Formats: sequence, C-alpha cells, structure tokens
Amino acid sequence: MQRYFLESTYTEALPSLRLTGDDYHHAVHVMRMVVGSRCYLSFRDKRTVIAEIQQITPTEVELIEISQETMEKELPCHVTLACAYTKGDKLELVAQKATELGMSELLGFSGKTSVVKWDDKKLAKKEQRLTKICKEAAEQSHRQMQPDVRLLANMATLVKELPSYDVVLVAYEESAKEGEQATFARAIAACQPGQRLLVIFGPEGGLTPDEINLLITHGGQVCGLGPRILRAETAPLYVLAAMSYQWELLANH
Amino acid sequence: MQRYFLESTYTEALPSLRLTGDDYHHAVHVMRMVVGSRCYLSFRDKRTVIAEIQQITPTEVELIEISQETMEKELPCHVTLACAYTKGDKLELVAQKATELGMSELLGFSGKTSVVKWDDKKLAKKEQRLTKICKEAAEQSHRQMQPDVRLLANMATLVKELPSYDVVLVAYEESAKEGEQATFARAIAACQPGQRLLVIFGPEGGLTPDEINLLITHGGQVCGLGPRILRAETAPLYVLAAMSYQWELLANH
Repeated sequence: MQRYFLESTYTEALPSLRLTGDDYHHAVHVMRMVVGSRCYLSFRDKRTVIAEIQQITPTEVELIEISQETMEKELPCHVTLACAYTKGDKLELVAQKATELGMSELLGFSGKTSVVKWDDKKLAKKEQRLTKICKEAAEQSHRQMQPDVRLLANMATLVKELPSYDVVLVAYEESAKEGEQATFARAIAACQPGQRLLVIFGPEGGLTPDEINLLITHGGQVCGLGPRILRAETAPLYVLAAMSYQWELLANH
Repeated sequence: MQRYFLESTYTEALPSLRLTGDDYHHAVHVMRMVVGSRCYLSFRDKRTVIAEIQQITPTEVELIEISQETMEKELPCHVTLACAYTKGDKLELVAQKATELGMSELLGFSGKTSVVKWDDKKLAKKEQRLTKICKEAAEQSHRQMQPDVRLLANMATLVKELPSYDVVLVAYEESAKEGEQATFARAIAACQPGQRLLVIFGPEGGLTPDEINLLITHGGQVCGLGPRILRAETAPLYVLAAMSYQWELLANH
C-alpha cells in the first residue's frame, strides 16, 4: 500500500485528511487511485494512519481515517549521519539506502580531502535532490518519518552541531587497520531509546589527523568498523545495519 | 598498499613470486610501481604476504616476500549470498558492496517474479563481469580471498546446492511485515567458526509462496530483517553488516 508523508502533524491535519500538489499527482495519475482506494498517511509527528479516499476533486484527494498504524517502524534512537562530500552519485546512494535502513537525518560537509568543491547554489540544488530521494525511499520502505537533509559548508559548521547529540562517533579507517573493534559495539549497545547519535564519515581520501583531533576535542569517539576497509559510501550502511541488528533484532532474540 | 590476488596457492607459487597479465599491467602501468615498491599478494589458500619488487621484465614483475600478513580479514564463517536476478545494475552493486562486507561467494538465480530473463550467453558474460567487480572490490577492501561468482539458471538448480551448507536462511519481506524478528539473530549468534551459511534473497517482486515453501522443505529458515522494507539489493548488505557486527565486533566488545 502506498505511503505519503504530510507536512503537518496529525493534530494540525484534523479534521480533514487531504493530498495536494505532488502527492495528489502521484496518487491520481501515477498510482491511478480511485474513491475507495487506501493508503498510509505519515504525519510530521511520526503518527501514521491508514486512510481511504472519499472524493477526488481537480486539486485535492480527500480521505478518511480507517485505522492507526501501530507497528513501530523507526529505530529507537535518532541517528544522524554526517558524510563528507564525495565524487559522483555516492551521496545519493547513501541517502536512499540509509533511509531504508532507518536514518533520521543526513548531514553533508566538505572534508579537507574532499575532491569536489560545491558552491552555495550547487549545495542548495543537491540538498533538494537528496531530500527527494529520502522522501521516496521513506515511502517505499514503510518508514513513519522522512529524514531531514542539510548540507553544511565545512567541518567548522559541523563541529558547532556536536553539542546537540548525546553520542558522537567518528568512523576512522586507521582504527580499522589497527584492529580497534570495541568502541563501536560498546557505544551502540549502551545507547538508550530516544538518544541522539551522530556518526561522522570522511571522504574517499579519509579524514586527516587534524580533523580527527578536532572531532575528538569536541567529544567524538573514534571507532573502527571491522577488519576490512569499507568505501566511503559503504561504511554508513554498515553502521545503520549494525544498529538495527543490535536494537531491533538482538533485543527481540 | 595495493593488493593482488593470485590464482595459485602460496606453496604452489614458491620459490618465486610473480605478477603477470592484467596484474602486471596494473602494477607497472596503472600504479607505476618500480623496483623496491611493495604490495600485498593474496593466494588462493587465503595466505597473504607483503612482497617487494626485485625486477621488472617486459612480461613479469618479480618479487620477494618481506613478511606475512597476520591480521585476520575474513569473516569466521563462509557466507554465500544467493540473489534472484533483478533489473539494471543492482547485482553489480551487491557484488561490490558485499565483497567489501566479507561475502565468500555470490550465486544468482532466476526467481518466479524476476523481470529479467537472461540466456546462457548473457549469464556467462554477466558472471565474468561480476567476478571482475568482486576481484577489484576484494583488492580495495583488503580481503584475503576473492569471492567466487556462479550464476545459476533457476531455483531448481539452487535447491540442489542447499545440502552443501550448514545453515540456509531465506530473507522474506512478509516475515518482516508480520514482525518476525528473532530467527535471523538466533541463527547467526549460533553459528560456529568454519560453518557454511547460505542466505537467499528474492527479486524486486519478492519470492512467491511456492518458492518459499520449496526452500523450507529443503531446510531453509525464513527470517525477517527488521521492521522496514528493504529493497532487493539492500537486504544482502544488511545481512553481511549484521554478521560482521555479531562475529567481529560484539565478540571483541
């Protein structure tokens, strides 16, 4: 069943449920929904209902609520990934796959060894594109929220954000090479539901020792992700899958 | 440091270590290595040495062994992924990322709902391409072995292979939807080093109930991978990351 993310909270939307704009177009012209068709509506406050179409006007789909979605689809912690800018479409791949895997927020930043240099105009366009990818992936993977995307200028801006997270982890290839394999598992096993985690990933060339030191000074914990060297776009997926395994599967095992 | 996979075992290669063919070309013309340059040589029996170039002839790079690589880079179990054929380049993405994440072997098969239908000629070409992708990813991610790739015709052929594995898991979207979240964690937590695992994944349209029943009859255990719906190409990456987390990180935590 198709899922749509609405801009409003559930309370703000009531008493009437409506699809407009792009969602209207998608429901009516792409999915060819008709009166009586059902879909999920996910609100900004993560509440989700199953709704049925009552009427289709030239600009709005009007629906009524049938039931609430009760199964929890979101990771118990709020996980933000901060990825350094990389070449090609790697950030697009991360946006799509990380959304499927439960990411709450995607930040981008320019690392010292980032090969690509994007100006403000390019960043705004890229941010828009990544937001759209996250929205579509969230709908397809049955998420109850749509990840936020914010592309920052550089690491100085990222460092200012660090105090707003309970735990800050930094994936570091050199830690992996040295066989450091305890920090990541210890950190995520200790996380409490509702906590805010930030995990930072370097570009293809890695983070520099200066960048690592700056992040450690501001509370970051450097960690390895196993003995193999993961590409810049693979490490974020490893981290989210491991979190889901630890929090959602092992917890129920 | 660059890594090359050799066709021979360590014992077969001795007393002389040589790079020829594509590896010769890569070392001399792409990496521009010279006498005194060092690289890793990984043998078919998973032994890996650091070697130094002694001489470069028009057809061979001759090296001497400097030391053995002692750090274990491979998952403790032999993990085979069997992926149904999917549209576009998704199998290529799985081959690359799953190699980084520790896969030992990649099987392909045509599922009932597989949209693409490949003839023998196409399968042979695709198998060659995927083998090359796995080799390159294995070199880049510092693996000690290069995953095998075998593209099978259909599920009947796959079913014949099942007895050669100790554990057979089947990722099933309907299990995820029903909230089944215990089987996967229980199975991989119980795995013993050296065991052979096979994990089977359907195409975009999923496995049919008949296919699921056939696999269960032949010893497959159906399992969900958390509450979100993962795409056909994302589920294999989830599985390998969770195995690495369980076997390599949690074990050292």
